[in-house]
Amino acid sequence: MLPESVAMTPLATGERKQCTVCIFGTGDFGRSLGLRLLQAGYEVVFGSRDPKNRALLPKGSKVMTHTEAARTAQVIFIAVERDHYEFLTSLTPALEGKVLVDISNNLKRGQFPQSNAEYLSSLVPGASVVKGFNTVSAWALQSGALDASRQVLLCGDDPQAKQAVVNIAHSLGLTAQDRGSLRAAGEVEDIPLQLFPLWRLPLWIATGLIAFFFFYLLIRDVIYAYATDGKDISFRIMISLANKVFPIVSLIMLALCYLPSVLAAILQLYHGTKYRRFPDWLDRWMLCRKQLGLVALALAFLHVLYTLVIPIRYYVRYRIAAGTIAQIKENTTKPFDNTMAWRTDSYYALGMLGFGLYVLLGITSLPSVSNVLNWREFRFIQSKLGHVTFNFLSPQSKLGHVTLLFCTAHTFLYGWNKFLRASSYKWWTPPGYMLSLVVPCVVLVSRLILIVPCVDNTVTRIRQGWERPEVKGGSQSNGGAQHPLMP
Amino acid sequence: MLPESVAMTPLATGERKQCTVCIFGTGDFGRSLGLRLLQAGYEVVFGSRDPKNRALLPKGSKVMTHTEAARTAQVIFIAVERDHYEFLTSLTPALEGKVLVDISNNLKRGQFPQSNAEYLSSLVPGASVVKGFNTVSAWALQSGALDASRQVLLCGDDPQAKQAVVNIAHSLGLTAQDRGSLRAAGEVEDIPLQLFPLWRLPLWIATGLIAFFFFYLLIRDVIYAYATDGKDISFRIMISLANKVFPIVSLIMLALCYLPSVLAAILQLYHGTKYRRFPDWLDRWMLCRKQLGLVALALAFLHVLYTLVIPIRYYVRYRIAAGTIAQIKENTTKPFDNTMAWRTDSYYALGMLGFGLYVLLGITSLPSVSNVLNWREFRFIQSKLGHVTFNFLSPQSKLGHVTLLFCTAHTFLYGWNKFLRASSYKWWTPPGYMLSLVVPCVVLVSRLILIVPCVDNTVTRIRQGWERPEVKGGSQSNGGAQHPLMP
Amino acid sequence: MLPESVAMTPLATGERKQCTVCIFGTGDFGRSLGLRLLQAGYEVVFGSRDPKNRALLPKGSKVMTHTEAARTAQVIFIAVERDHYEFLTSLTPALEGKVLVDISNNLKRGQFPQSNAEYLSSLVPGASVVKGFNTVSAWALQSGALDASRQVLLCGDDPQAKQAVVNIAHSLGLTAQDRGSLRAAGEVEDIPLQLFPLWRLPLWIATGLIAFFFFYLLIRDVIYAYATDGKDISFRIMISLANKVFPIVSLIMLALCYLPSVLAAILQLYHGTKYRRFPDWLDRWMLCRKQLGLVALALAFLHVLYTLVIPIRYYVRYRIAAGTIAQIKENTTKPFDNTMAWRTDSYYALGMLGFGLYVLLGITSLPSVSNVLNWREFRFIQSKLGHVTFNFLSPQSKLGHVTLLFCTAHTFLYGWNKFLRASSYKWWTPPGYMLSLVVPCVVLVSRLILIVPCVDNTVTRIRQGWERPEVKGGSQSNGGAQHPLMP
Repeated sequence: MLPESVAMTPLATGERKQCTVCIFGTGDFGRSLGLRLLQAGYEVVFGSRDPKNRALLPKGSKVMTHTEAARTAQVIFIAVERDHYEFLTSLTPALEGKVLVDISNNLKRGQFPQSNAEYLSSLVPGASVVKGFNTVSAWALQSGALDASRQVLLCGDDPQAKQAVVNIAHSLGLTAQDRGSLRAAGEVEDIPLQLFPLWRLPLWIATGLIAFFFFYLLIRDVIYAYATDGKDISFRIMISLANKVFPIVSLIMLALCYLPSVLAAILQLYHGTKYRRFPDWLDRWMLCRKQLGLVALALAFLHVLYTLVIPIRYYVRYRIAAGTIAQIKENTTKPFDNTMAWRTDSYYALGMLGFGLYVLLGITSLPSVSNVLNWREFRFIQSKLGHVTFNFLSPQSKLGHVTLLFCTAHTFLYGWNKFLRASSYKWWTPPGYMLSLVVPCVVLVSRLILIVPCVDNTVTRIRQGWERPEVKGGSQSNGGAQHPLMP
Repeated sequence: MLPESVAMTPLATGERKQCTVCIFGTGDFGRSLGLRLLQAGYEVVFGSRDPKNRALLPKGSKVMTHTEAARTAQVIFIAVERDHYEFLTSLTPALEGKVLVDISNNLKRGQFPQSNAEYLSSLVPGASVVKGFNTVSAWALQSGALDASRQVLLCGDDPQAKQAVVNIAHSLGLTAQDRGSLRAAGEVEDIPLQLFPLWRLPLWIATGLIAFFFFYLLIRDVIYAYATDGKDISFRIMISLANKVFPIVSLIMLALCYLPSVLAAILQLYHGTKYRRFPDWLDRWMLCRKQLGLVALALAFLHVLYTLVIPIRYYVRYRIAAGTIAQIKENTTKPFDNTMAWRTDSYYALGMLGFGLYVLLGITSLPSVSNVLNWREFRFIQSKLGHVTFNFLSPQSKLGHVTLLFCTAHTFLYGWNKFLRASSYKWWTPPGYMLSLVVPCVVLVSRLILIVPCVDNTVTRIRQGWERPEVKGGSQSNGGAQHPLMP
Repeated sequence: MLPESVAMTPLATGERKQCTVCIFGTGDFGRSLGLRLLQAGYEVVFGSRDPKNRALLPKGSKVMTHTEAARTAQVIFIAVERDHYEFLTSLTPALEGKVLVDISNNLKRGQFPQSNAEYLSSLVPGASVVKGFNTVSAWALQSGALDASRQVLLCGDDPQAKQAVVNIAHSLGLTAQDRGSLRAAGEVEDIPLQLFPLWRLPLWIATGLIAFFFFYLLIRDVIYAYATDGKDISFRIMISLANKVFPIVSLIMLALCYLPSVLAAILQLYHGTKYRRFPDWLDRWMLCRKQLGLVALALAFLHVLYTLVIPIRYYVRYRIAAGTIAQIKENTTKPFDNTMAWRTDSYYALGMLGFGLYVLLGITSLPSVSNVLNWREFRFIQSKLGHVTFNFLSPQSKLGHVTLLFCTAHTFLYGWNKFLRASSYKWWTPPGYMLSLVVPCVVLVSRLILIVPCVDNTVTRIRQGWERPEVKGGSQSNGGAQHPLMP
């Protein structure tokens, strides 16, 4: 592939060493990796129990016994499951001084006391083990897909060994991130096991709230009607009831997105310093705000669909026709109610504008869009609040508060004058929409108080590193970059 | 730009060589590239027929004759069309040992028997030709847009020459992927010519199905009404008919997304091994499943719009008013039909939930979102099915099956009791929605059978490399990583 | 972290130097950076006024006085605000020959006459200053988020210093882009201050048009009705009026997306050459076409929501019931109007298809999707129009023209026979939708003329570098790559 004449220069020697890569294991990942390495100009040697078997191996690769294969290359990918690592002990002489890349994953967290890579290192102490490539799928390698995850996370104790693997990753068009020494291998192995950890809490909250409001409204609407009037309106479960549950839960979850930053500000005001860690539950809550918001958006989307489908429902058409017929039979004409027209139109308009903002919020949280937004966000954070690590009133957060305001106003217009009507409180329970207004109102009122200049100034000063005198001694803190740093 | 004092160290010498870059050709791409190189700190020298002409060239660049320009730099970008390459033969002495970067593209596949880069290499055999940058647009270079494609695909025979070009690409903030030797140049040149190749088949299928169902329903609905009753209901083509065609084709195409993996499982069960390639048509079908699904989503989106617009249509309003008037004139009141209310509400609810899942499916297939999903997907594949190269029941695929189930149930509720009614079979043809149920039912039933434990176990074992004894000898396969690998 | 035995090789020596990184300042950014560097295997030493204070610093880091800290490392990050830079002058001996990374940002453009990095360089002339990392947020560093902006822009005068910082960036999993010498620092510092500059013009245009049409229609619809008939229909502002303003402004803005490329073609035809810069306003207009289109899409989305909500409005239900009652009382039955059914159904169908295309257009402009599209776009540009720097009739632009055609036709069908009806011209003003048709018609007709073969050929030839003879002498241009380049 390259002229021999350049083999004398140090650089070229370095390149030569990389030219052959060995792969132990001829499974799907091994084959995909081999194909890709061949395309990138490497020579590929597979180590196999049965070197005569070449079924499905990429053209241009060689197959040898493990010992022979190990001798040909400096870097050896171990595409074998952990259970079969033991056979490597018999290859110790051949693996002396080699770079072994452990690409394995486990089926669940903490399956083994020791990470696979550290286990491998203990089996073959003479080799330099690098953990990596475990977050790349065979499919991504084979398809060369532009849209596949291109980041390789690496860790290992030998920087030269790591560099060799980084070079290979770069040749394959991947980016590499150094995650430190081999002790970090367990962490790297756990990454593919994370089932969207940030989604778990929001999904649990959504499920809990939906279940609660479903049964609450089932009792209030359907069972109440049956118990008091003997009417069977169970068909309303499918759309009418669902269309109450979705907006209620959506509004509460949207408010829950913005509650933690209010709590954080209050905690900081209370402690008079920012140099105190937030409680763990608050940290966890803050991390999943985006996911909370997206679940809320999904429910709002369903609410919109369920609302727009109303006029084609059989029940609605029946009732409208019945209403018209009744008017004719009684020979009365209801007068046009201007207030009603204003109220309902404002109600719909606020809802639609709120939903529009909701969608905008969702779009700005798409990974590729938020990349572009990040710079601006950063600038905002720095300019107004100092280098704070959470996003207090970034543009997205401002947009979110306006959305919350619109949706809360929409709900208030829905309630209108029913708040004070006794008939709304069936069996002494308040209607669902009233319950849904509690959290949003708390958030909006607290936010309003925090905007009041004297409060805002204190929060801003705290965020810039200022501390209330009485606490300063106690927290032993150093404001860092925000203070004069004269030595 | 850099102090002379460091010029003695080897590294600095390497840097020096890159400091000047030469560009032959002063067209748009050449000028954009030159501007960007200047911004990255390179000196840029343009080679031109007419070195006195500096019109539109970026400030700070130099223009010389080709021979002079070639002498100033180690790396020369050839921003000239292939037709004009021949003049380079006259520069052979000046180009000796230089790195020539061929950035050209062709207008169609296989326009020339030899790739442009190989042709260039044959014209100037003393230079090292590197193919690359042809997939980057002048616009992307000039705008420095963060959202532009940042990947440079490179190939060439001389690793040092390639490395020099990789370094330039990195300085410009691009990532580079090595695609092997210069023999791969034809492939790299073909990449920009691929008009979304994976979209072609799905779009053809969609067009074919839409045309078929349009004419089928036109005959059954409009022409039948005209032929038997003499009624002209041709206006229904615009919305009513379209709103039957869209959901039918959408449902069929969604099912077609999930049919190939069922077929694959059946084939594997039949052959008793996974070490046999699937037929070509199945491979091609599998590759475009995502595109099939997205076309289906687009049609489902239109179906939703067309359905929600129903109540504002003139025809519908007319019919509803006519119905009310008829009821009054006959002085009858249709009783409220509870079953009808349940059925229609369930029908709408299933449709809306199905559409919600459809949209979720679409969002998870956005490139930036699926990046984030890939890790999880990989883990799933590994944990349950071994390192298989296709995505059998990934979370997205599970979501897709649930979507399919909802949409199929939605269609069944639409049909309700019309399946057995003779009047549905106008001119002995079944209604469109019945035809649309065939493929989804096949997929769902097969999937159900494949989930039955004894079948599922066999499939899983096959996917983990197990082979049915009688076929093992024949296929001569090696299960690779899944087998014990004792040497 | 690494065995001492490899410290003799040149490469390892290079690595050693990077092993310790010093950070001046213990603020949020400093701490986040420190944590990330520790994870990547670096030793981290903080320089602080008060080295005994370790509050909130990442575990494993050291704290020393600034002088001591500076001695431990070759690369020093200055995570201190510009106002406090002066204390660095007292450290001059310790900083001699070190690489200082200036990560600071300003609160507004041109806050200081000299960029922060140049100021730093003037304070410590013995050190090599590299500007960078200012576009990365502390949050992105800390979370290691995959979806955060990963690009570091660097500039500096010393290539070796820059390379050292590039290596650190790569270790942290970031990509680096070289932006030239330290003179470019001001530009790099301004980047986070850009508030979506391309959004400003489109948002102003949208606000202006919405305000104009709102008041125009308020006068024509609400005030006219009040002035002539004394009817108060002010409730119509919320939905009916808004639902006229949104589509009108949306259609005009969609047309404004495609007007500049028409103007550009006309200018090129007029001048007979492409080697003349467009006027500045045209350039600026062209750059923000995508943003114009996205604002138009947002308005179209609101128009769709506002239209679909029509049948559940109180006013509409009231009017329909009143119409039915009136028909019964007069004992007349309006005949079914086939033309009306055709017209309104076509009107809705065109609108919905247009909106579908609009959404498709929006999706293709998502950063991650347009990445994938870019190759194709490039190819198109090259094949038909030569290497032009703007996107004349790319697939996206074609799609946009079809969208514009559908939406314009939708609006014409809305107008129908009202164009010639005198009653449409209240107070001698034309209805809003007529005004909205002006720009789209201009664009569509001009585009039609430009497609006529003889005009199209001239434009294509001009774009390929051809110039009309009479202008050639004047413009002194050089067609570059498109011309034979014989020297």
